[in-house]
Amino acid sequence: MLAHRLIERKRDGGRIEPGEWRALMNAYAAGHIPDYQMAALIMAVFIRGIDRDETSALMEAMLGSGKKLDLSSFTKPRIDKHSTGGVGDKVSIVLAPLVAVCGVVVPMMSGRGLGHTGGTLDKLEAIPGFRTDLSLDEAMKQLEELGCALIGQTSEIAPADRKLYALRDATGTVESIPLIAASIMSKKLAEGLTGLVLDVKRGSGAFLPELDRGLDLARTMIELGADHECPVVALLTAMDRPLGRACGNALEVEEAILALRGEGPPDLMNVTYALAAEMLVLGHVAANTDAARRELEKAIGTGRAAERMQQIIEAQGGNPGVVDDPAALPQASHVDLFAAPRRGFVARVEPRAVGRAVIALGGGRTKIDDVVDPTVGFVITAKPGDWVEAGEPLATVFASDRAGIETGRAALRSAIAIADEADPPLPLVSHRVTSSGAELYARD
Amino acid sequence: MLAHRLIERKRDGGRIEPGEWRALMNAYAAGHIPDYQMAALIMAVFIRGIDRDETSALMEAMLGSGKKLDLSSFTKPRIDKHSTGGVGDKVSIVLAPLVAVCGVVVPMMSGRGLGHTGGTLDKLEAIPGFRTDLSLDEAMKQLEELGCALIGQTSEIAPADRKLYALRDATGTVESIPLIAASIMSKKLAEGLTGLVLDVKRGSGAFLPELDRGLDLARTMIELGADHECPVVALLTAMDRPLGRACGNALEVEEAILALRGEGPPDLMNVTYALAAEMLVLGHVAANTDAARRELEKAIGTGRAAERMQQIIEAQGGNPGVVDDPAALPQASHVDLFAAPRRGFVARVEPRAVGRAVIALGGGRTKIDDVVDPTVGFVITAKPGDWVEAGEPLATVFASDRAGIETGRAALRSAIAIADEADPPLPLVSHRVTSSGAELYARD
Repeated sequence: MLAHRLIERKRDGGRIEPGEWRALMNAYAAGHIPDYQMAALIMAVFIRGIDRDETSALMEAMLGSGKKLDLSSFTKPRIDKHSTGGVGDKVSIVLAPLVAVCGVVVPMMSGRGLGHTGGTLDKLEAIPGFRTDLSLDEAMKQLEELGCALIGQTSEIAPADRKLYALRDATGTVESIPLIAASIMSKKLAEGLTGLVLDVKRGSGAFLPELDRGLDLARTMIELGADHECPVVALLTAMDRPLGRACGNALEVEEAILALRGEGPPDLMNVTYALAAEMLVLGHVAANTDAARRELEKAIGTGRAAERMQQIIEAQGGNPGVVDDPAALPQASHVDLFAAPRRGFVARVEPRAVGRAVIALGGGRTKIDDVVDPTVGFVITAKPGDWVEAGEPLATVFASDRAGIETGRAALRSAIAIADEADPPLPLVSHRVTSSGAELYARD
Repeated sequence: MLAHRLIERKRDGGRIEPGEWRALMNAYAAGHIPDYQMAALIMAVFIRGIDRDETSALMEAMLGSGKKLDLSSFTKPRIDKHSTGGVGDKVSIVLAPLVAVCGVVVPMMSGRGLGHTGGTLDKLEAIPGFRTDLSLDEAMKQLEELGCALIGQTSEIAPADRKLYALRDATGTVESIPLIAASIMSKKLAEGLTGLVLDVKRGSGAFLPELDRGLDLARTMIELGADHECPVVALLTAMDRPLGRACGNALEVEEAILALRGEGPPDLMNVTYALAAEMLVLGHVAANTDAARRELEKAIGTGRAAERMQQIIEAQGGNPGVVDDPAALPQASHVDLFAAPRRGFVARVEPRAVGRAVIALGGGRTKIDDVVDPTVGFVITAKPGDWVEAGEPLATVFASDRAGIETGRAALRSAIAIADEADPPLPLVSHRVTSSGAELYARD
C-alpha cells in the first residue's frame, strides 16, 4: 500500500517525505516491494523530478539501508575520488597508491563497466590473481597497513542502491541528476570519508555530455556531502576523447603502471595530478595544489608510488611482478596497426565508439554474466588536433583473433575522423566546483 | 533492447510507432519483456501521454495479441454494453437477456470487482452452480441458441491487455484515458460486434469523476470503434450515489431478477432502458429509442425477459429456480436495519464508501485470491433528496456475523449524510455521445 500511494503522489508531481523514502528503501532492499512498482516510481521520479530535500532524503535512505566502513579510529585523513565514468579512464589505479604514499587513506570502492565505459574492477582483475572482493574487515586491515584498498561495493554497502542501480539500468532511468548524485553519494558516504574529490566528465563520451548538467550534478553531490560534513571538490574534465592512450582492461593497467613509474601520457598525468592534488589539500597534507603537485611528482620520481602499488597488488592476491614487468599481464594473441587513411588533422576520436568497440572485441559486457577478455582493446596514439600523414600509424588493435582485428579496425575508421581542419578539443580540466561555487580551472 | 529504446523515447515525450506497439505487446504477452520494464514504460505513457494514433495502435496491438470471437456467420446484429464501473451497477444482468429477447445477440464478456466497484462475474457466481468460464466454443453455441452468454474474459482474448491491466492496477497507472480506452476496446472489439453501447459513469463514485474526462473517454472509445467499423454510442450516467438499492453480490442478482420481472427500482430501470434502447437502435431492430423502449417494456411485461434469464442460467449450469424464487440465492446469516440518526434531507449516499464497506464485509477482494462472500452487503432505500425522520429505516445491512452488522452500520453512518439542505443529485443520464459529438441527453 505504501508503494502504491507514493507512486500515485509522485506521478502527480507531489513530494515524498524523508520517513517515506526511508520506509520505501528499507522495504525495497528487503524484497518487500516488487521491482515493477519501484520501476513505475523511479520513472515518475525521473520525469517529475525530486527537489534537493528529497534527493537528500533518498540518499540518506539508501545509505541507511546498509553498513558503513567505520574509519573513525584512523588519525589520517580519509579521502576518495570518484569519476562519473569515461573511456580510457584508468586514473583510479594511478591515483590511489600515489595519494596513499603522500599520507592520505584512500578507501577506494569501484564499480564494473557500465554502458560504453570500462570499470576499475574489471581492469584490476586483469592482474593475475588480483581479488577485488575483500570483506569490510579485510579492507580495514589493508587500509591500516597500506593506506589504500581497491575493492568492489560489497553487498553490505547501500544494498538499496545496488538493487535500484540495476533496475535503473534496465528501465531507462539512468540519466537523472538527482538519482545519479544520490546513488554515488550513498556509496561514498558509507566509506567514512573526511573528504571526496569528484571527476565529473563532460563531452560526447560522458553520461551527461552537457557542461551545465555536469555542473548541476557536481553541485548536487557537493550539497549532499555537506549534509554529512564531508567536504567535496569537483573537477570537470574532458571526455570528448579517450583519456590517455590505452582502452581495454590489461592495456589500461599497463598504462597505469607506466604512469606510476613516471612514463604516463601527459593527459593522463595531468588529470591524475589535478585530482590527487585536490585530495592532498582536502586532507590537509598539502597547503595548496602547487605544493601538493610537487609532493605527488616526488612520490612518483622516487619510485615510492610504484612500490606501493606492488604492495597493494600483493596484499590483494595478485602478481606484484606486473609492476616491474607489465609483459606479465595477459597478452592479446593478435596485434596489428591501424594507419591513417588520409593526411590531415585528427578532428575527432569518438570515445563512445571506442568504448563500444572494446566491448565488441570481448573486453566488456553486454549481459550481466558475460566473461570479460582482459587482453583486447586499443592503444590510440593519435590525439585530436594532431597533424597526420596518410599511412601513418594512429593506433594498435589488440584482439583474440583475426576477425577481431578487422572489427577493431572498422570501429577505428568510424571513431577517428581526419579532416582539413579541426576544432580545438575541450580543455582537459575546465572547471573546479566547491561549496563556494564553480570557477574556471587554473592551477594555483 | 526494443523495450529499453521505447522506454527512453516515451520518457522524453516521443512517439511509439504502430509496428513498435505491436512488437512490444506481442513480446510482453509472450513473457519476453519483464514487468519492471513495462511498468516504467506505462508510467512514462501515463505522464507524457499518447496521442490518438498511438492509442489506436496500442489498442490494435493488444487486440492482435489474442483471438477474436468469429460471429460473422450470425445474421443478427451483435451489440454489447460496457460500463466504466460503479457501485450497485447490476445493469448488465438485466439488460443482456432483455436485449437478447428483442432480437439482438449480446456476447457479454464481463470482469471481476476492481477497486471499490463490484464485478458482474462475482455477482453472477452468487447463483448456485453458475459457470462464467465458458470456452469460446461453448459461448458461440449459447449465443446461437439464446442470443446471450454471460462470460469472463478468456485467456485467449487480448492476453497482453490482461497482463497490462493487472500491472497498471499495481503501479498507479489506472486512471489514464487512453490506457482505459485501449483496454476496454481491445476486449470489446475481440467480441466481433456490429455495435457497442458505453455506460460512462461520472460523479464521486466513478473512476474518472469529472464530466470532461468522462466525455473525453467516451470520445476516445468512439474513435477507436470507428477504426473498426464498430459504431459506438456512449451515455454519461450518474455515479454520485449507488445505482438501484442493492449493493452486494447475491443482493444485486436478486434486484436484477426483480427488475426483469418488472419490479426494479426506477433509477435502475431507467438506466437499463436508456442503454438497452441504444442497443436496439444500433442493431436496427428499432427505428428510434422511443420505439425501442416500448419493445423493451413489452419484453419485461410479458415475462419473456425473465424467462430468457432462466434459460441462460440453466445453460450456464446455474439453478434457474432463483428467477421464480430469489430466496434460493444464498442468504446472509445476520440481517439488521440501519435507521436515520436525525431528521432532514438525505444529502449524500457516497458510493465509494458503500463499495468499500461491501468489500470490508467480505463481499469483494483486497487480494487477488480472496474468496468472495456472496451474501453480504446493503439494501439502501434512501436516495439523495429524500426527506427522512429520525429513526426511520434507511437501509438493511446483510453480514455473516454480529461484528459485520456493526461494521456495516458504521460504514453507513459515514456514507449517508443527512442535512437541513441537499444539493440536487446529478441527472441519472446526462449526456449522449456519438461520432457526431456530445449532446445533453433527452428521450426522443
